[in-house]
Amino acid sequence: MENRKTNTMKLKVYADRLSQPSRAVIIFCKVNGIDFEEIKLDISKRQHLSPEFKEINPMAQVPAIVDGRFRLFESHSILIYIACAFPGVLDHWYPADLFRRAKINSVLDWHHSNLRRGATTYVQNTVLGPVLGIQMNPQAAAEARKLLSSSLSKIETVWLKGNGRFLLGGRQPSIADLSLVCEIMQLEVLDEKDHIDILGPHKKVQQWIENTRSATEPHFDEVHRLLYRAKERFQERRLKGLDSEAESSFKKVLPSKM
Amino acid sequence: MENRKTNTMKLKVYADRLSQPSRAVIIFCKVNGIDFEEIKLDISKRQHLSPEFKEINPMAQVPAIVDGRFRLFESHSILIYIACAFPGVLDHWYPADLFRRAKINSVLDWHHSNLRRGATTYVQNTVLGPVLGIQMNPQAAAEARKLLSSSLSKIETVWLKGNGRFLLGGRQPSIADLSLVCEIMQLEVLDEKDHIDILGPHKKVQQWIENTRSATEPHFDEVHRLLYRAKERFQERRLKGLDSEAESSFKKVLPSKM
Repeated sequence: MENRKTNTMKLKVYADRLSQPSRAVIIFCKVNGIDFEEIKLDISKRQHLSPEFKEINPMAQVPAIVDGRFRLFESHSILIYIACAFPGVLDHWYPADLFRRAKINSVLDWHHSNLRRGATTYVQNTVLGPVLGIQMNPQAAAEARKLLSSSLSKIETVWLKGNGRFLLGGRQPSIADLSLVCEIMQLEVLDEKDHIDILGPHKKVQQWIENTRSATEPHFDEVHRLLYRAKERFQERRLKGLDSEAESSFKKVLPSKM
Repeated sequence: MENRKTNTMKLKVYADRLSQPSRAVIIFCKVNGIDFEEIKLDISKRQHLSPEFKEINPMAQVPAIVDGRFRLFESHSILIYIACAFPGVLDHWYPADLFRRAKINSVLDWHHSNLRRGATTYVQNTVLGPVLGIQMNPQAAAEARKLLSSSLSKIETVWLKGNGRFLLGGRQPSIADLSLVCEIMQLEVLDEKDHIDILGPHKKVQQWIENTRSATEPHFDEVHRLLYRAKERFQERRLKGLDSEAESSFKKVLPSKM
């Protein structure tokens, strides 16, 4: 495989830390000591829809990267690109071994239509709907919740089968651990009881989240800080009974980003 | 990357030719002269839910492969594995070049939550719903149709931008062309007018489907034959006004598979 030329330009990462795939890419870069520049986009201010950003990613989604003249989007592809292009990344993140790499690809592919679809659709149709002004679909929420729970069960019985600390029996995390755990972290913004109902039955998943967090500290918590603050705001709102306020705006709930 | 040991066991592909990712994998193997054994599973007879198959793929989905002692599922991962493991596969299918490979990964990742989600959800909530006995959700169908159309537009304006015959300006097809085209082929079972309404505005997509078909003949049409027969059955049904029959079974509509 052709190597990335050593570039005088720093890798640019376009991201919103409230987006789970953005967090996965940023944490990955930080853990691996990649020299990169984070360009913050605020989705709540629709900055990802600007003509300037659409030049970078015509799909208008974060994260996206620019590496010299090369542009790329889709977080899994970005993680794989960085793992292959930057010499400092340790093998366990995306093993060169044909069979282990194939298994990690399989987890990442599975993720899209299962855990990600369940978690994202559920959060959008419960907590984020009212603040984003999106009309919620209760049937979609119910189906997403079912898919989310079955995905968590599958993670336990298939990917976390055995005694490994990470997916596929790994002793060290791969990009699949990081991507899936960042997705689950999004559930932090849910109502606390709901959050416990969803994650409570999955002790192995809870332990694996903790393992992934420990393996990537202090970056994991630092990059999730914005999400933790959003969680607090949502809790305050619930205590004040503001959930039913139709005029509520995203800005009131989300912490200001810098 | 470690190479697959030359194996005395033939590659086994578990597939249902009415499943679009199954077709992509079978066509890929045939076009590349891979020595493989196709093990046909009939989803309509729930053969993918058997304990024997769950030993191969605990997610109970086709396609899946067994290569010696190695088991793998998720069609994109399978295509990548075969491209990397079998020496006869030409480079254009999954280029070794870091940048071109990253772009193909990006298309494949994008596919899951866009074209695939739109097409599959739409077909399930229109044509397949009544015959599979699944309760249809008109709102889900409407949203899926919107996602399907916007995905086709994105393919034209982003991935087929320029004058290449294939995605990303390619002169030869990649695994992304094969995966996405097989997905779109599923729309053949739709009502003819609906099919024209969806694909009609996308001339570039139509040309690209034709290019991908030509590049993979005679295997493309041979592997799609079961789908073409299912399409005819659906059309006959419509002419006879059988769509409203609640007791209709999948068997009556789908051609028997062998």
